[in-house]
Amino acid sequence: MALIGIDLGGTKIYGVVLKGDEVMAEAKAKTPIHGGPLAVVDGVAALVEELGGVDGIDGVGVGAPGAVVAGGVIEQAPNLPGWVEPFSLGPALSEALGGSPVVVDNDVNVGTIAELRMGAARGATELLGVFVGTGIGGALVLCGKLRRGPAGVAGELGHVVVRSGGRLCGCGGRGHLEAYAGRAALERRARTLDAKGRDTQLVELAKAKRMTSGVFAKALAAGDAVANELVDEAVVALGTGIASAVTLLDLELVVVGGGLADRLGPAFVGRIEQAVRSELFVSRSALRVVPAELGDRGGAIGAALVAADGAP
Amino acid sequence: MALIGIDLGGTKIYGVVLKGDEVMAEAKAKTPIHGGPLAVVDGVAALVEELGGVDGIDGVGVGAPGAVVAGGVIEQAPNLPGWVEPFSLGPALSEALGGSPVVVDNDVNVGTIAELRMGAARGATELLGVFVGTGIGGALVLCGKLRRGPAGVAGELGHVVVRSGGRLCGCGGRGHLEAYAGRAALERRARTLDAKGRDTQLVELAKAKRMTSGVFAKALAAGDAVANELVDEAVVALGTGIASAVTLLDLELVVVGGGLADRLGPAFVGRIEQAVRSELFVSRSALRVVPAELGDRGGAIGAALVAADGAP
Repeated sequence: MALIGIDLGGTKIYGVVLKGDEVMAEAKAKTPIHGGPLAVVDGVAALVEELGGVDGIDGVGVGAPGAVVAGGVIEQAPNLPGWVEPFSLGPALSEALGGSPVVVDNDVNVGTIAELRMGAARGATELLGVFVGTGIGGALVLCGKLRRGPAGVAGELGHVVVRSGGRLCGCGGRGHLEAYAGRAALERRARTLDAKGRDTQLVELAKAKRMTSGVFAKALAAGDAVANELVDEAVVALGTGIASAVTLLDLELVVVGGGLADRLGPAFVGRIEQAVRSELFVSRSALRVVPAELGDRGGAIGAALVAADGAP
Repeated sequence: MALIGIDLGGTKIYGVVLKGDEVMAEAKAKTPIHGGPLAVVDGVAALVEELGGVDGIDGVGVGAPGAVVAGGVIEQAPNLPGWVEPFSLGPALSEALGGSPVVVDNDVNVGTIAELRMGAARGATELLGVFVGTGIGGALVLCGKLRRGPAGVAGELGHVVVRSGGRLCGCGGRGHLEAYAGRAALERRARTLDAKGRDTQLVELAKAKRMTSGVFAKALAAGDAVANELVDEAVVALGTGIASAVTLLDLELVVVGGGLADRLGPAFVGRIEQAVRSELFVSRSALRVVPAELGDRGGAIGAALVAADGAP
């Protein structure tokens, strides 16, 4: 069975052709900044052509940011340029591809499925996938199946409260995990501390641009105190949030990926595992917290795998 | 189908005969203080006799506090007198009842099943059961089935962290929901505040005895400031812990029961619902938080229902 998987991101579109467990081809393109959803459909269709087109392909899967509901509709996608209203990406893309079946799912869901089937969680039937990037994404596999929930929004670990009444989250809530451990939150905090006179390389390295995961890695390597402090806080918050999920659900495996986690490497994930253990109610827990294995390609691979499973 | 359900508590054993949805008989006895597990087996067997014995009964179910694992083994039951080692309650009770099949499950699990099938959650297929008593118990029903988890300890909402690094919990952890909202934690806090000179009726009403749910209800009704403060804190913590579970799992129904919640009534549960809503990530959530309907009898009814389902 040959499948095409597309990882639709806010800045780039990345696609693979997957045959069995093997990536046969890959391609990428910039996400169109102008033209909204219709331009995105054209961009994805062009990338599919670049990957060899849909002849002999059994299904196309798309992993997209934001709230994906049944029928391939993206309800909200604040990270996709010009994407202001719900849009039926699945049907529109299917039409652009001459009627090929298209399955659309949330990017964190497909990334977690990829780690389950071809990555760090191979052989497992239960998994919490945690993606530490600009925000914190989460997805749950219980008894071999993705937990979507009745509204399709299950798995939002980033908006689990780790400190009642605590730091303001990008979503407007207080004390959410994402407010302590997402890259964007760390950047806000670093710029605030810098403005208050704390000495840090983070702002110098980033300048007026985005404070990337690479900037955090460099500052940590140079022993920057603020970078260390922020990452320590992130580790504690991730430990708390993940431990709460593990305690509630009795989970045995957590995979941690995403841009920031990938960049900071296995040592960062090891520290998260320790932090989780220190917060667990069941001390004899068989829990393991391991780094994701598929990196940047996980989203597209997972999208292809989900295409084979059919619509959510 | 006629079933016997037993709620095995730290101070009393309560049993029912259930036929369809109807409680045909009920009986109770004190939990033996001396003699450990074997005395408890005798006590339960005597109560079954009082209920009419096992002739014509299709199954006996027991809801017990503590960690219940496969095969009717209770691993830990700190609330049962003299119960220090794992004990195979299921097989021992079955033998004492002349070979009748016996199913043992956790008391919170069976209480949640009772609310699902015959109580406040009738017709639902997904449910978070929260029991606010001496501690905080929790159980999850997902896709129509109790979530037990690989180690059989799923649902421990009481030990979900609501405040990273916060108040010490009875289990030794920090910032757990139970440390802010369990009756025992409220009592500890009230006695500490009293010792520090805060004026409160709670300690006068309880004297040297346990500070019961009734004591809290009385002090609240009299406008006691400390009682109000403690219950306010409990409501906020319950809001945070339940909201985290709802956000993670995309749940639509939460039933709140247990001694303290039953005593404080629907207004208390209404306040918890408001607190949960204020912390939810998905503002359009269809979530409802409702009071349990079966009160004290829920455990025994649920145990009977679980007996019909067979062993976990």
